[in-house]
Amino acid sequence: MRDIRIHEVGLRDGLQMESEPVPTVTKEQWAAMLIDSGLDILQLGSFVNPAKVPQMADTDELFDYFKSNKKDRKTLLSCLVLNEKGLERAIKSDADMICMGVSASETHSKKNTGMSTEEALKRIIKMAIEVPNLGKPVQVSVQSAFGCGFEGEIPEEKVINIVSRYSDAGILNISLADTAGHAHPEQVKRLFSSILEINDKIKLACHFHNTYGLGITNVYTAIEYGATFIETAFGGLGGCPFTKLSAGNVCTEDFVHSLQRNNNRKDINLEKIIAVSKYASGFFVKELPGLVYKTGGLKY
Amino acid sequence: MRDIRIHEVGLRDGLQMESEPVPTVTKEQWAAMLIDSGLDILQLGSFVNPAKVPQMADTDELFDYFKSNKKDRKTLLSCLVLNEKGLERAIKSDADMICMGVSASETHSKKNTGMSTEEALKRIIKMAIEVPNLGKPVQVSVQSAFGCGFEGEIPEEKVINIVSRYSDAGILNISLADTAGHAHPEQVKRLFSSILEINDKIKLACHFHNTYGLGITNVYTAIEYGATFIETAFGGLGGCPFTKLSAGNVCTEDFVHSLQRNNNRKDINLEKIIAVSKYASGFFVKELPGLVYKTGGLKY
Repeated sequence: MRDIRIHEVGLRDGLQMESEPVPTVTKEQWAAMLIDSGLDILQLGSFVNPAKVPQMADTDELFDYFKSNKKDRKTLLSCLVLNEKGLERAIKSDADMICMGVSASETHSKKNTGMSTEEALKRIIKMAIEVPNLGKPVQVSVQSAFGCGFEGEIPEEKVINIVSRYSDAGILNISLADTAGHAHPEQVKRLFSSILEINDKIKLACHFHNTYGLGITNVYTAIEYGATFIETAFGGLGGCPFTKLSAGNVCTEDFVHSLQRNNNRKDINLEKIIAVSKYASGFFVKELPGLVYKTGGLKY
Repeated sequence: MRDIRIHEVGLRDGLQMESEPVPTVTKEQWAAMLIDSGLDILQLGSFVNPAKVPQMADTDELFDYFKSNKKDRKTLLSCLVLNEKGLERAIKSDADMICMGVSASETHSKKNTGMSTEEALKRIIKMAIEVPNLGKPVQVSVQSAFGCGFEGEIPEEKVINIVSRYSDAGILNISLADTAGHAHPEQVKRLFSSILEINDKIKLACHFHNTYGLGITNVYTAIEYGATFIETAFGGLGGCPFTKLSAGNVCTEDFVHSLQRNNNRKDINLEKIIAVSKYASGFFVKELPGLVYKTGGLKY
């Protein structure tokens, strides 16, 4: 099995879906525990309009909090930005990695950013090509790459075209996001294979939601077809506030547990991720979609 | 993708785990709806000691109820038996297909049947080879084939050895059951590949539980590595009362929905399965593990 890198997005994709705002100090605790677990990349939050997504209003503050131990930290701290203003804040916050993207669904793109896919793509590419000059990795994504709650089918050529444009611009860290959770394994095989045909130097990431029960199945298929960076959320939290019907992300500890069953990524401390999900379950006073934080991991 | 046949086991593996007994008339309704949906095989129940598993006490009655429309029915009605007495009842009930098995875990075998694996295997083979003489298909299984809640790891050679014994006896419908839900994809690949090396005429079935979140992922892997008959339960109900910690089966409607997303098994009426899960969720007054009965299926 190829080397798998885990990009924990629960503090962003997870918390933006919860109506109960999480105090900054609690986010700091959760982030510290996740960093401590040895996950590869941790998305601390997004730099977006606090009026639209109040749950993300303290992202600058969070980056500031983790500035002091930057040198000793193995985990990269990433963020999501939507526009130039967000990028400016991300740079000011000295985020280790900056993520941005466009939606392959026109409706989702309009609702999320007020722009068409083409408008957003031009803008994002312009922003993305600047980031490596600052010595930081950038990751670009195609949201709603496997279907859209509003539009239904998204033509695969449209996704491929966006990826080609990224690749032509020299941006090779590319994530396909199944924002609404419509993906199925055959579709994952087709899209990921096509992308590596465009440019086999592309470093593929994937981001699946479990709306219809295929989250982790699609992750395994994506790995088989070239994905290295897997975006997951502790407890299986998550969803997208700007699409129609989306369940949680693939659950980090469930996925890590499955890798460890096959002697992969034993360097990650599963118990520390489980502790965060238990904490979050208590905080939100509800059961989260993840399973392993409830069952405990298998010990053999 | 190979031809996939679905063996619905919710009325047996699902209901045996519920403390609330389901009245026979309700089971008849659920079974009729499941037959109507066009599923390939429906397990009506097991012929076991009603004192030990009271939820299955009416299995004879259920077979009797569905006797009248046997000729027009496309769906095969199967049952599970544990011993000679059960087999006798199954034959008397004129079940279309008879399932039986042994556990690869000594502890699970003892708890489930009071016999060691070897004792149970001899007995089951002796029983199974008689069934085709009655003009009925028989399916044999290896339970706890991927790990055991009591024993932990189950040596793969032990599973392979049981399968070889079945194969040597000419019994070729063989199901590997992940009773505790410990399986992971790499293990599924190894075991299924090894089995087809023993005898490529074996018709492989699989039965996965979702205890740690890998149920449907293991099904897709099993299909890729030769499985044709997939055992699932409506609503994702299920578990094994005689093992330690087992969550529900792979959910029938979630799995059928995933196949239909890829234009497979469009002949199955998804809505009719969803209706049973909604009914069962109402009956048990709880949310079931399945997702699609809550979200509805994608329509495009």
